[in-house]
Amino acid sequence: MAHTDPNKPQAPGAGKSSPRYELLTLGDELLLGLTPNSHLTWIGGQLGRRGILLQRNVTLTDEADAIAAQFRESWARADVVITTGGLGPTCDDRTREVVAGVLGQELVFDPAIEAQIADRFAKFGRKMTPNNLRQAFKFARGEVLPNPNGTAPGLWAEQDGRVLVMLPGPPNELQPMFTEQVVPRLEKLGLLARGEAYIQLRTAGVGESALETKFQPVFDKYPGLSIAYCAHLGQVDCRLSSPDGRYPSETLQGIAAQCAELLDLDFVCYGHDSLEQVVADELRTQHRRLAVAESCTGGLLSNKFTDLCGASKFFLGGVVSYSNDAKMQLLDCPECMLAQHGAVSAECAVAMAIGVAEQMGADFGLAVTGFAGPTGGNGENPVGTIYLGMHTPGGDWSRKLTYPGPRGAVKERAVTAAIDWLRREILREARKAVTAAIPLRN
Amino acid sequence: MAHTDPNKPQAPGAGKSSPRYELLTLGDELLLGLTPNSHLTWIGGQLGRRGILLQRNVTLTDEADAIAAQFRESWARADVVITTGGLGPTCDDRTREVVAGVLGQELVFDPAIEAQIADRFAKFGRKMTPNNLRQAFKFARGEVLPNPNGTAPGLWAEQDGRVLVMLPGPPNELQPMFTEQVVPRLEKLGLLARGEAYIQLRTAGVGESALETKFQPVFDKYPGLSIAYCAHLGQVDCRLSSPDGRYPSETLQGIAAQCAELLDLDFVCYGHDSLEQVVADELRTQHRRLAVAESCTGGLLSNKFTDLCGASKFFLGGVVSYSNDAKMQLLDCPECMLAQHGAVSAECAVAMAIGVAEQMGADFGLAVTGFAGPTGGNGENPVGTIYLGMHTPGGDWSRKLTYPGPRGAVKERAVTAAIDWLRREILREARKAVTAAIPLRN
Repeated sequence: MAHTDPNKPQAPGAGKSSPRYELLTLGDELLLGLTPNSHLTWIGGQLGRRGILLQRNVTLTDEADAIAAQFRESWARADVVITTGGLGPTCDDRTREVVAGVLGQELVFDPAIEAQIADRFAKFGRKMTPNNLRQAFKFARGEVLPNPNGTAPGLWAEQDGRVLVMLPGPPNELQPMFTEQVVPRLEKLGLLARGEAYIQLRTAGVGESALETKFQPVFDKYPGLSIAYCAHLGQVDCRLSSPDGRYPSETLQGIAAQCAELLDLDFVCYGHDSLEQVVADELRTQHRRLAVAESCTGGLLSNKFTDLCGASKFFLGGVVSYSNDAKMQLLDCPECMLAQHGAVSAECAVAMAIGVAEQMGADFGLAVTGFAGPTGGNGENPVGTIYLGMHTPGGDWSRKLTYPGPRGAVKERAVTAAIDWLRREILREARKAVTAAIPLRN
Repeated sequence: MAHTDPNKPQAPGAGKSSPRYELLTLGDELLLGLTPNSHLTWIGGQLGRRGILLQRNVTLTDEADAIAAQFRESWARADVVITTGGLGPTCDDRTREVVAGVLGQELVFDPAIEAQIADRFAKFGRKMTPNNLRQAFKFARGEVLPNPNGTAPGLWAEQDGRVLVMLPGPPNELQPMFTEQVVPRLEKLGLLARGEAYIQLRTAGVGESALETKFQPVFDKYPGLSIAYCAHLGQVDCRLSSPDGRYPSETLQGIAAQCAELLDLDFVCYGHDSLEQVVADELRTQHRRLAVAESCTGGLLSNKFTDLCGASKFFLGGVVSYSNDAKMQLLDCPECMLAQHGAVSAECAVAMAIGVAEQMGADFGLAVTGFAGPTGGNGENPVGTIYLGMHTPGGDWSRKLTYPGPRGAVKERAVTAAIDWLRREILREARKAVTAAIPLRN
């Protein structure tokens, strides 16, 4: 904190119970819809986990006057203002200058940043053009957040009892900078809770109001407990916290455990793991391996698993059998079965699951077939009809589902349903194994 | 326009050259990072195509005071204010009331909306709870935008020479409402251009500055031409327009055609089609069929093609061969080749492409293998190394690429490179076919 003004009347965050955060995301590409605003989603999520509800996100053009006016407004209102983008070398990138103007700060050239940028260009064998030196300026009363993944460093300033954090636009530069440098500084100033601000139970297969009804008798025993439900993508999370500090972390954990027990298999995990991560962990623990076969979801199911680091430890592969020939050739689906029941049928789903597990030597086979739309479908199986097929060491099953909505949504929901079903079956298998291992009395 | 105030001094959009649009997106779920702000991306993109740069997007909490203050500010500044979310039946959904308060408008009960909501509940066999009737209120001086895909209708009001558009939050309700109802109304008021405001050339494989150098001699012949470059995901779009109307649409088309010719295969398409859509159209025209084999991209390549409606017309399927066994069993990759060269090699990529095309009976086989990271890799092939393999009616090839970055980015970039290469090879095949068909002289 060596560079902050020693005369400032109020330390950042002093005496605040819930500090106010605002996020300014800069760049015409966001407003033109060329790039999704992933900064809001990511930074909002990070703050949310630590008990902060981001109060406002403003996305605005690269125009200097607009940036100045909005920054002045946010700075007057918030305890912490975070900006993203506009720190690069081109003439569009004027955020640094505009913000310095509003704060009455001088920008000073930092030879250490210059050296870092030059190093990076040398490392990749590129020539550094002079405009890159625009990135070597920092606030006179502020600090530099080094950027190991790009040329533009982040900037940090404390002034007027407030904190300013300026981050570069590319997510792979912004995210580690935020986690490794910004979060510890905000914690130190008391502007962010250390660790997660709540205990989260992640659930699947139960609606929000049913969940509330189920949990209420438990919560009634703990007055002052704060409970928040967050529904997303067909799952509901329940967040427990103790705003007045009445219940220590262990008590909260105990309450969460009571809830989890009430849910049985509808309980997914504590924390923020995805359904596929939970499945992956369980398969790895049990040394079981998975293969998938997809028709209408067309690779999305495989892709969910292969997005996980270390997927090759449990995931053997998948077949996207978009044609009947592919189902016969690669999954050994019998031609007469396809002729009798069609490719969108319970029979075909099960045959696909068994076929892919056998071809790949997997313990679990998971299959999806259906009509994702907008065309296709018939009287018995209209657009939105999905059949799931499952092969496990304990048997084979199918399941029929119906989802309204556009093609992309049907694919997404079918995949979520398939992964959740697999999660339940893996847990059932594991329980059976435990039960079988208990020796009978007498 | 029957419901607007006949005494208002200024018609919306009158005398405006470029009207100012602001977008307010409401909902704590956006600020907590539970739901990405797809409304900004989508509405921003729609306006951008019609020559409007959205000036500002503010995402804020469901708190009434914050909504009122922000709406007042945006309303004072903009010609068109669009809001999304906060129109539903629960007590969080107070946007309608807050906005009515700022505008000094009365909310009136509309029996027609009630009937529509009741119909919808009846259709799905659900019971309508009384709180749903909150959605049946509209502005006394305003209009209703019917919602065929949900219960909450949109609202439209013209006042103070400005336009207010309030849209429901779910994208599958918002998007058709915007396209079918809002756009025609804004066009009629002169607040939105009819049709696209520019001619767009989509390119691949050329950087922005190289593109500029290539095109400049063409553009020099047309003074006053407006040129904008938009880079995204390794592609660059070039948008041509004539702000002073000097060049009619046909002239712009002619200029674009000159640019396209300069680019040869680096030209992708006019307009906004994705690389995979261009490949799909070309394959369907040529009655050719495709199969893909993936290792490190794990289903993402298949998923890009199966996201297209009608994919089954050209896409036979894919194999995600995450293990060596899968490569041998499903793609006929020889064990000795895998032992000699490894799964991440040019030889393996080509074998996968040939194998999947043969198994599925496809004309084109496209394969990806590599190290997406964060672990894996070796001296010769570090993390980020990708091999593409291609089987075409005219031959088989491989190509080596290297991408830095996190796992998800490597997958995404490898898939884009694979699809772009396929696009070029399909076009080369088609040209060869045309050349072959031209009878030799003499």
